[in-house]
Amino acid sequence: MRRVYLDNASTTPLAPEVRQAMLPYLGEVYGNPSSLHEWGATARDAVELARERVARLIGAEAEEIIFTSSGSESNNFAVKGLALAGQGKGKHIVISAIEHFSVLNSARTMEKLGFELSLVPVDKYGLVSPEEVRRSLRKDTILVSIMHANGEVGTIQPIEEISGITREAGVVFHTDAAASAGTIPVDIKKLGVDALSLAGNQFYGPKGIGALWVRKGARIIPLIDGGVQEGGRRAGTEDVPAIVGLGRAAELAMEKTTVRMGHLAKLRDRLLGELPEKIDHVVITGHPKTRLPGHASFCIRFIEGESMLMLLDSRGIAVSSGSACTSRALKASHVLIAMGLSHEIAQGSLLFSFGIDSSEEDVEYVLEVLPGIVDRLRQMSPLYAKFVKITKGGS
Amino acid sequence: MRRVYLDNASTTPLAPEVRQAMLPYLGEVYGNPSSLHEWGATARDAVELARERVARLIGAEAEEIIFTSSGSESNNFAVKGLALAGQGKGKHIVISAIEHFSVLNSARTMEKLGFELSLVPVDKYGLVSPEEVRRSLRKDTILVSIMHANGEVGTIQPIEEISGITREAGVVFHTDAAASAGTIPVDIKKLGVDALSLAGNQFYGPKGIGALWVRKGARIIPLIDGGVQEGGRRAGTEDVPAIVGLGRAAELAMEKTTVRMGHLAKLRDRLLGELPEKIDHVVITGHPKTRLPGHASFCIRFIEGESMLMLLDSRGIAVSSGSACTSRALKASHVLIAMGLSHEIAQGSLLFSFGIDSSEEDVEYVLEVLPGIVDRLRQMSPLYAKFVKITKGGS
Repeated sequence: MRRVYLDNASTTPLAPEVRQAMLPYLGEVYGNPSSLHEWGATARDAVELARERVARLIGAEAEEIIFTSSGSESNNFAVKGLALAGQGKGKHIVISAIEHFSVLNSARTMEKLGFELSLVPVDKYGLVSPEEVRRSLRKDTILVSIMHANGEVGTIQPIEEISGITREAGVVFHTDAAASAGTIPVDIKKLGVDALSLAGNQFYGPKGIGALWVRKGARIIPLIDGGVQEGGRRAGTEDVPAIVGLGRAAELAMEKTTVRMGHLAKLRDRLLGELPEKIDHVVITGHPKTRLPGHASFCIRFIEGESMLMLLDSRGIAVSSGSACTSRALKASHVLIAMGLSHEIAQGSLLFSFGIDSSEEDVEYVLEVLPGIVDRLRQMSPLYAKFVKITKGGS
Repeated sequence: MRRVYLDNASTTPLAPEVRQAMLPYLGEVYGNPSSLHEWGATARDAVELARERVARLIGAEAEEIIFTSSGSESNNFAVKGLALAGQGKGKHIVISAIEHFSVLNSARTMEKLGFELSLVPVDKYGLVSPEEVRRSLRKDTILVSIMHANGEVGTIQPIEEISGITREAGVVFHTDAAASAGTIPVDIKKLGVDALSLAGNQFYGPKGIGALWVRKGARIIPLIDGGVQEGGRRAGTEDVPAIVGLGRAAELAMEKTTVRMGHLAKLRDRLLGELPEKIDHVVITGHPKTRLPGHASFCIRFIEGESMLMLLDSRGIAVSSGSACTSRALKASHVLIAMGLSHEIAQGSLLFSFGIDSSEEDVEYVLEVLPGIVDRLRQMSPLYAKFVKITKGGS
């Protein structure tokens, strides 16, 4: 059976070059970067080179990069650490309604600690309106956290416009760029933000590694206390192989972003273009233009996304029905609900996320397989039967 | 030049078997364990097998194991998460004076959030007295955190006796077993604790991975909020290769602990036995008997540990002068100070930590090299000159 991995939004495979870069650090180079001897120095040099590479990817300075264990940790660190650092000035936090759960639930935790939280709505494309952000700001607002791109529907937010507003108001602005950094150009100077999260496994780097960029001079309270690693901002023995891998992935991304984006967009456009010709009642989700190149997200009405996912899996096709982080909770996506979709439609969501190894043949295989699955499931769907009855009755 | 790595307390090298077990997960097996398709299922199976192996190492049940990114994260999670979960009952925390900074500084952070902290002293061997723990308990004590073994001086604490006291008092007891788990037998039932931290890079497993065991039914507030990974207790895409590596390292440790301990203790005993014959004014630190098998820790008077470390490094020998996590802070160890050593003596501390690859030849090389280094440094030491003058004057 053909095996087609179209779930790069959940995690990308490791690029062979990244794996190659990591191998020495799983073997002969094993020192602790904090150790004051040659073994330590060799490991430390590797970590610092990776730090420079990650910094370069986003136009930052190396010393501003803090390595973490994931995008989720970066987001927790940013939301909790920046809020705690700013609480002398106020206790009001603003996020969007479609943030990743690591931002949303971190903000909810801060609420329990006495902070106040405002959720900015999005439009039907999943776009945050900068004016809504402006309206949400108060005198005691100390932190705004709005994602760069949404990992479920691909919509890219107008971060530059929002940062103009936060800068004017003197409010710290964090953006979760886990879904975008390494995939599309991300430049902290252009974006104008104060802190930015990224994740290795979103751009062919390792799992178990992320980074938080914090503007020089901005205060942040550590999430993980202990030793003096990462400039005293994040304790724990550095994960040298994963850090080296992240650095190499960042370097590859810088070299190849344009070519990769073209490749991904071509496949996505073909799938999103041809699918509605083969399947009725397809609702494409996310912004029609301002979106990640590899994300083909849509809802197929009258069917549950999970059922389609299972049958696609049985045909060797891997996709997801929302965020992998909450897939096992089997709830309708808070992102789609915030975009105004009904629970009924949101239940039928699918995300095909292309990667650098994806091909035209993969798209063709999906276009061949999916319509049959949809037909089969609709035959068993009481919702669909009801719909057909009503429309026939009405016509 | 001979290269001798005797800094296994800072980090152990990766066992070849562990590396081998990890490799497929840095290649063809790349799914996200949370994904609901075959790629995800394969990754998930690997994670769950590793969880069982880690659980078996400490006599726990698989579902009680939470994977983290390091021993430091485990300790932060335990101290902060158990304290926050218990604050309905009280806000008093007890730790020992020689905890790792990830426990100590986590407790200090909780102090800033309104908790109260008591530090239990240790004796000259670095031993916590169970009676002191009993005396420190109050009606509002909700958490005791005392390490199993100290990574700087090797002293193993009477955890079983302490847990008898905390259990009687109904207080949650966490132990940081980062330095002991995988090195000496660690059984949560025998120890009688409620939560236990361990770290992969302390027993030939990967960096960037740790675990927290929490007794079934015990409440803990997440440190990293977000998705539903790790039973909703620790968000973030699972670091599959590192988790698999930790599982394999746990399995190896179970098979080999007895043999490894014998090997390490033999080398340690020889070094600690012969060193005082070759160098004057050596003060062995830690408990003479109840100590980790591979830790040879001592102070050499009238010299700074860092100078010895540098000269040893120039002769190809890697050791440390305290904890790697704070080595770059260049302060006298809080552990040695708590044990009653003067700052002057504590400054001259060295830790030779043996590993499974260490040999008799390594010990011989150290015994050959170190006395010369000590002589050379003492010739330049004003402290030593003063000491010689006084003792000559007095004799």
